[in-house]
Amino acid sequence: MHSPSEYLEALIQELGKLPGIGSKSASRAAFHILEMNETSVNRLLGTITALRDNVRECTICGGISDTDICSICSNTARNRRIICVVEDKKSVLTIEKTGTFNGLYHILGGVISPLDGIGPENIRFSELRRRCESEDIEEVIMATNPTIEGDATVLYCVKLLKPLNIKVMRLARGLPVGADIDFTDIATISKSMSERHEV
Amino acid sequence: MHSPSEYLEALIQELGKLPGIGSKSASRAAFHILEMNETSVNRLLGTITALRDNVRECTICGGISDTDICSICSNTARNRRIICVVEDKKSVLTIEKTGTFNGLYHILGGVISPLDGIGPENIRFSELRRRCESEDIEEVIMATNPTIEGDATVLYCVKLLKPLNIKVMRLARGLPVGADIDFTDIATISKSMSERHEV
Repeated sequence: MHSPSEYLEALIQELGKLPGIGSKSASRAAFHILEMNETSVNRLLGTITALRDNVRECTICGGISDTDICSICSNTARNRRIICVVEDKKSVLTIEKTGTFNGLYHILGGVISPLDGIGPENIRFSELRRRCESEDIEEVIMATNPTIEGDATVLYCVKLLKPLNIKVMRLARGLPVGADIDFTDIATISKSMSERHEV
Repeated sequence: MHSPSEYLEALIQELGKLPGIGSKSASRAAFHILEMNETSVNRLLGTITALRDNVRECTICGGISDTDICSICSNTARNRRIICVVEDKKSVLTIEKTGTFNGLYHILGGVISPLDGIGPENIRFSELRRRCESEDIEEVIMATNPTIEGDATVLYCVKLLKPLNIKVMRLARGLPVGADIDFTDIATISKSMSERHEV
């Protein structure tokens, strides 16, 4: 295949490296950027540059932040006695979108996975313990993914924090809202059966 | 929803404006950019900047080009007596990918569409005519989309170029390769029936 523009090809290739963007989407997006006016292109460049130069890890929770301490950790209106523990930075945004949680967060940066050689010492568990010891934390909600590794991480956390007299909770598992039982996997149905509750 | 980074939100919004990238893909891509090392981010910025500063329209065919005359129009190894007429710049790359065409291109920049107020004078028909008059063109292949507007554009082109004794061809229409007749729309089956040929 011959392409009449090397610059366009280079951009298509760079965009194609982003997750969730296949070669066709990358090509469409690159063409769109080509037809954008200079102001719009500069705005796009500006947002990427600003991200590169300003976004860092919050020194408390380990989440993304524009300042040394993120806007959630520094917000005094939030419930400072509950910490929601998540696997990665992205989960914070996902949970914030639901609007159902008003406490603080702690990003582990992974889950315990012996097969991958990841133990509790490789993720941010000591930081969590330090926060729980130094602050007045009542409850820790484990929001790791409902996988074997996520479950192992929950169990370790229970062992770690029980001596501190902190209630360790986990997200409910069961049928997704709007699901069709006939199309739900066996493991999920089993879990929703064993964790059934009275109405 | 509260986001701990305005810069990240700004980038998610900019990426979400690109076609084919929904809000979830934009969010994934922005997080990916956030985790990229500085060299990779700079490479991405560099490709967008290079595109903005260098890519222009070829003065002959109207396609994308890194120079005043594109690498297809200036390639003497190509068949300079056949012009493939396409609706937009992107079609050139699509046809080049097939490797079945070795002639030149002409980008109309649209199709005749009276309902949208687009007549032959609003697209690059006069440039096509000028090329056909001044160069030794034998054949023009119409590769507009198989739509009503595309068909109207083909008919206009026939009227325009017949007096110059130029053969005007069009792409075949029929069943897509690998299609299932039972799942093909009626219009396509009708067309493939009326344009059937002996084997």
